[in-house]
Amino acid sequence: MTRLRGRLVAEFVATAVLLCAVIGSGIMGERLAGGNAAIALLANTGATIAILYVLIEIAGPISGAHMNPLVTAALAVRGHHERREIAPYLIAQAAGATAGAWLANAMFDLRVLQWSAHARTGLGLWLGEAVATAGLLLVVLRAPKEKVAALVAAYIGAAYWFTSSTSFANPAATFGRMFSDSFAGIAPQSVPMFVVAEVFGAGVAVWAARKTAL
Amino acid sequence: MTRLRGRLVAEFVATAVLLCAVIGSGIMGERLAGGNAAIALLANTGATIAILYVLIEIAGPISGAHMNPLVTAALAVRGHHERREIAPYLIAQAAGATAGAWLANAMFDLRVLQWSAHARTGLGLWLGEAVATAGLLLVVLRAPKEKVAALVAAYIGAAYWFTSSTSFANPAATFGRMFSDSFAGIAPQSVPMFVVAEVFGAGVAVWAARKTAL
Amino acid sequence: MTRLRGRLVAEFVATAVLLCAVIGSGIMGERLAGGNAAIALLANTGATIAILYVLIEIAGPISGAHMNPLVTAALAVRGHHERREIAPYLIAQAAGATAGAWLANAMFDLRVLQWSAHARTGLGLWLGEAVATAGLLLVVLRAPKEKVAALVAAYIGAAYWFTSSTSFANPAATFGRMFSDSFAGIAPQSVPMFVVAEVFGAGVAVWAARKTAL
Amino acid sequence: MTRLRGRLVAEFVATAVLLCAVIGSGIMGERLAGGNAAIALLANTGATIAILYVLIEIAGPISGAHMNPLVTAALAVRGHHERREIAPYLIAQAAGATAGAWLANAMFDLRVLQWSAHARTGLGLWLGEAVATAGLLLVVLRAPKEKVAALVAAYIGAAYWFTSSTSFANPAATFGRMFSDSFAGIAPQSVPMFVVAEVFGAGVAVWAARKTAL
Repeated sequence: MTRLRGRLVAEFVATAVLLCAVIGSGIMGERLAGGNAAIALLANTGATIAILYVLIEIAGPISGAHMNPLVTAALAVRGHHERREIAPYLIAQAAGATAGAWLANAMFDLRVLQWSAHARTGLGLWLGEAVATAGLLLVVLRAPKEKVAALVAAYIGAAYWFTSSTSFANPAATFGRMFSDSFAGIAPQSVPMFVVAEVFGAGVAVWAARKTAL
Repeated sequence: MTRLRGRLVAEFVATAVLLCAVIGSGIMGERLAGGNAAIALLANTGATIAILYVLIEIAGPISGAHMNPLVTAALAVRGHHERREIAPYLIAQAAGATAGAWLANAMFDLRVLQWSAHARTGLGLWLGEAVATAGLLLVVLRAPKEKVAALVAAYIGAAYWFTSSTSFANPAATFGRMFSDSFAGIAPQSVPMFVVAEVFGAGVAVWAARKTAL
Repeated sequence: MTRLRGRLVAEFVATAVLLCAVIGSGIMGERLAGGNAAIALLANTGATIAILYVLIEIAGPISGAHMNPLVTAALAVRGHHERREIAPYLIAQAAGATAGAWLANAMFDLRVLQWSAHARTGLGLWLGEAVATAGLLLVVLRAPKEKVAALVAAYIGAAYWFTSSTSFANPAATFGRMFSDSFAGIAPQSVPMFVVAEVFGAGVAVWAARKTAL
Repeated sequence: MTRLRGRLVAEFVATAVLLCAVIGSGIMGERLAGGNAAIALLANTGATIAILYVLIEIAGPISGAHMNPLVTAALAVRGHHERREIAPYLIAQAAGATAGAWLANAMFDLRVLQWSAHARTGLGLWLGEAVATAGLLLVVLRAPKEKVAALVAAYIGAAYWFTSSTSFANPAATFGRMFSDSFAGIAPQSVPMFVVAEVFGAGVAVWAARKTAL
């Protein structure tokens, strides 16, 4: 394992590229799809799973490629990561998510500093986020190491479509998506409840993993 | 192998997630596709094969990840599974399928208890189901263990499109799809003949596997 | 290697399933796509590559899973297959292709016996077929055994889109597609020149493989 | 490793097939998509990543399958390739790219010699090219050898959508795309700045790789 500083740089860069891909492909999809949201989401899904696979394979050996504070926290709770690194990882991930959103905005000639106006709220969406995050964490906690990139990518690809919330499943990604008023964005006032639902789903997954002695 | 209780829990959860993904992605696809059924089915296909791959990789080491009573029965007939576990597996799968349908309904803010009105009937569809199930069972019976997740997912992805019935190929999934009046649903009165066709197709596959001494 | 009879059965079944998938997914795609040929071809492509991957993995250990007389012939010319088996393989493949087309017609409630009226002719298309077949044969002749299923599937998936002819690249498949008046069909009078172009492309590939001492 | 002449032939053929696939699938996608650019780009993306995967697996053992002068140069700078081969590789790649474009034009019954009129210019696009190329080079420099085909293909598939420039990320490909007045083309006057941006992005990647002692 690399030293903490190198790993934080890796988490920052990986999370930045992830958010840049999620938001950038959302912008591209929306621009080209002629109003058909399913086509935009298909493109958004394909780009997301492809970059997730790449990032986990490339950054995994350096930092673990969590790109998600709940992954870091769950691994720490399960004894696979140092607890004292949860906070620095979270900061690197949130900063990376923000930088990635800004980079996407810049590439697509949009104002770099902007806020999403896309409200995402309601019991169904919160249930969707909890389900999405619980599933993601179970995949992360159970996947054999050499298959984790393919499995996480495939899971998120499915969850983009089968959860009502399109599966953010990641507080850092939710945070970063605030900074883009586009297809993949989320209005700031919708963020807190999304994060609550994600934390709840992660808690259920960690509880289930402990029960079944994973 | 885990004890029976743990395996039944795994079958229940895996079948629930599978049906939740099949039905949820159908709802999402239909809502976003603007009336283009091919785009909705593309999304439904992608989500189904991705979650199948994940579930077989993750739950396979626990319960075998059958999620399908005909898979359980065929493996038992071929001597790869205990015959006395067919019934408990079937119950866990049917209960999981129902729970998954209800979870999808809840996530998408639909009435949890509902029945599909989507009639699926006719000789062509029944032939489609028989072909789909025979193919699935041959893949399951012949695939090398380390490739079964990818092969089953790829097969179902193809069969969603090349069989006229969109390849349910699974009595538990057929049962669960009754409980959602959406894209992936099937009206209760259409279920019995679908199951008959699936059992017939499975029988052909088991007969062919025996003939060729697989 | 299985005895010849078993291998011919495997070639027959594999080619039948391949053609059933190619034609069936074409019918389904055309029915659902609302007139958008690109969406129909996307579905057709996805189903074709998925079933190709499955068939080569499952039938490969039995018969080699050629499903294509030019593959059989090229492997024989390169010394990887018995020359005296070219003719029986070709007959099994052509019969399988026909049976697969008829099965697709039956599943979709179409007249089982029918001829395609889809003329495919012209220099561009013939060049496309030659390029498509040359590429396929080079992939088959050079691919490491354990990757041939993924590589052939990926190659055909690309060639469906980058060759002007949508890459039949297979005289048995071309023969079978005559029997379906649908998206994937080809009018009987267009078949001879397609086969000539395919044979020419295969010859170029075998020549190139010899030159580079593959 | 094959002798230089054999490797240059492999680079020529691989780059020709790559450009033929990129341009051909763009033409096919545009013709069939009925004006929906997102569907055309989805098809273009699928064909590109599939052929990239095939070419790197098949031509990789011969020449390295760079198909991109910046890949050759970066590997040389990092000590993984002979510096004196940069120029011959570049010439083979540029010639292959041109031949591939012409072959695509011929297959689709278009004038073989033509120039793209598709202007691609502006700060956002240039930033997109720099980001796309930096990411590609980091993937190439860090990917384990046995995964490089899948990782490069997945990365480019994502970058087609998340960068504003649809990720040419390759001066040889940019050069070849000049010769097709179609979906994937680029007007000659837009080429120089694209190449500048690509070189800049590659430089950043090589600098980052050195900093982190990859």
